[in-house]
Amino acid sequence: MRAFKLTMSYDGAAYAGWQVQSNQTTVQSVVEAALARITGGMVRVAGSGRTDSGVHALGQVVSFQSPTRLSPETLRNALNAELPRDMAALKVEEAPIGFHARLDASGKRYRYWLNDGPVPDVFRRLHSWHVRQPLDCDAMHRAAQAFVGEHDFRSFASRWPEDLHSTRTIYEATLRRENLPDSPTLIVFEVAGSGFLYNMVRTMVGTLVEVGRGAKPECWPAEVLSRTDRNEAGMTAPPQGLFLVSVDYPTEATALGQRQMNDDELGE
Amino acid sequence: MRAFKLTMSYDGAAYAGWQVQSNQTTVQSVVEAALARITGGMVRVAGSGRTDSGVHALGQVVSFQSPTRLSPETLRNALNAELPRDMAALKVEEAPIGFHARLDASGKRYRYWLNDGPVPDVFRRLHSWHVRQPLDCDAMHRAAQAFVGEHDFRSFASRWPEDLHSTRTIYEATLRRENLPDSPTLIVFEVAGSGFLYNMVRTMVGTLVEVGRGAKPECWPAEVLSRTDRNEAGMTAPPQGLFLVSVDYPTEATALGQRQMNDDELGE
Repeated sequence: MRAFKLTMSYDGAAYAGWQVQSNQTTVQSVVEAALARITGGMVRVAGSGRTDSGVHALGQVVSFQSPTRLSPETLRNALNAELPRDMAALKVEEAPIGFHARLDASGKRYRYWLNDGPVPDVFRRLHSWHVRQPLDCDAMHRAAQAFVGEHDFRSFASRWPEDLHSTRTIYEATLRRENLPDSPTLIVFEVAGSGFLYNMVRTMVGTLVEVGRGAKPECWPAEVLSRTDRNEAGMTAPPQGLFLVSVDYPTEATALGQRQMNDDELGE
Repeated sequence: MRAFKLTMSYDGAAYAGWQVQSNQTTVQSVVEAALARITGGMVRVAGSGRTDSGVHALGQVVSFQSPTRLSPETLRNALNAELPRDMAALKVEEAPIGFHARLDASGKRYRYWLNDGPVPDVFRRLHSWHVRQPLDCDAMHRAAQAFVGEHDFRSFASRWPEDLHSTRTIYEATLRRENLPDSPTLIVFEVAGSGFLYNMVRTMVGTLVEVGRGAKPECWPAEVLSRTDRNEAGMTAPPQGLFLVSVDYPTEATALGQRQMNDDELGE
């Protein structure tokens, strides 16, 4: 048996999220079916986390085991031949037996795209949230600094079970205008952390937008955080603006046997 | 009666091109239907040129006349409410009576996106051409300089009627890597000129790709140009990579009465 680490991108628009569900086409079910056709045996894959329906990935990491003799590069090319055109295998690497994309992850990076222009951006309509009101980006960026550090993020989690650990560390949270010539009103929120609760990034965005449009003061996200109550935060921003950018793993030497309690199974 | 100049963007993937055709959904037919609902009367629109099936626009210019009393801004907002989500009205301006988006145009700018990476770019799959072979961008850029200036572009036109004037002036032709962090293998060809023959930009791209992949020498596009024979050029690149970026008009003072013979009706 060999273990593999697959890094892949997908456009989530057509899928009912990452995780296998009966009677729904999910990213996981499509990847497992492609691997079964390629290797000739049933393959179960684990993603670094569940992405919700309509959420995208630039660098989702997926682990699986298979007795296949195909090389990582041949597997990648075979996957790109088998996968639908809204999914791509970017890289396949051999991994230590026991490598698990979710349990071994030490951090993740997400990006969320917003457009605050007066007219829709037709080319990003499936990959951004059109807010239709001018947003004060600088105020949103300053407000987002409240998220940086180790905090209990329960206020920013949808349906988080009471008995699950909800403290996460955010390393970086930035919000800026992209100033692309063809998309002058595009704004990007980028956030990296040790892990994310369910709908956490989208609730951060929904909360920051309240600041950006002037409905709430800059100090409000910090107050929401301190209340540890989801009812205090802003709306959950729509899924199509969210991208899982990358997943971090400890260096190989420390990867196995040093697994932390990682309960991001329900994460974003 | 009042005359209007509408600047609009559209994602061409779902349409059988710009021009009205029986039994097909075209951009023109959708815009005319929206304007009829908004103004309560039949409206005929003229585009600056026909875009082919699957070709996109960042700044197509459209002229129309209507007795409506709505302000340009109200018309724009009403259009954005009526148009499907893959079309957007960017700007509506009042224009001199007689303004015609095609006949009065003095120049156009197009952009064509290519991806030469080993794996597909899922987020640009509907907006670029995936060549799957490394391209020598610098060689393509140098070869593209043969297009600059006034030339008979008959070698680069599909089905161009023999009796139509096929000389055009190209002001600028550049090819470069975009070096975007999420799309490291994206290449953009940008070309501006007085006008373009049918499929001219796509045939330029198909020809330059032969140079980029090393199948033809850098001097080949210049030779193709001098032969004035479509059979000499490369393939017509697929439509989904092509964007009409903008259309130029002379300043208002000179716009009317100085119309040139503009036979771009069959243009790109």
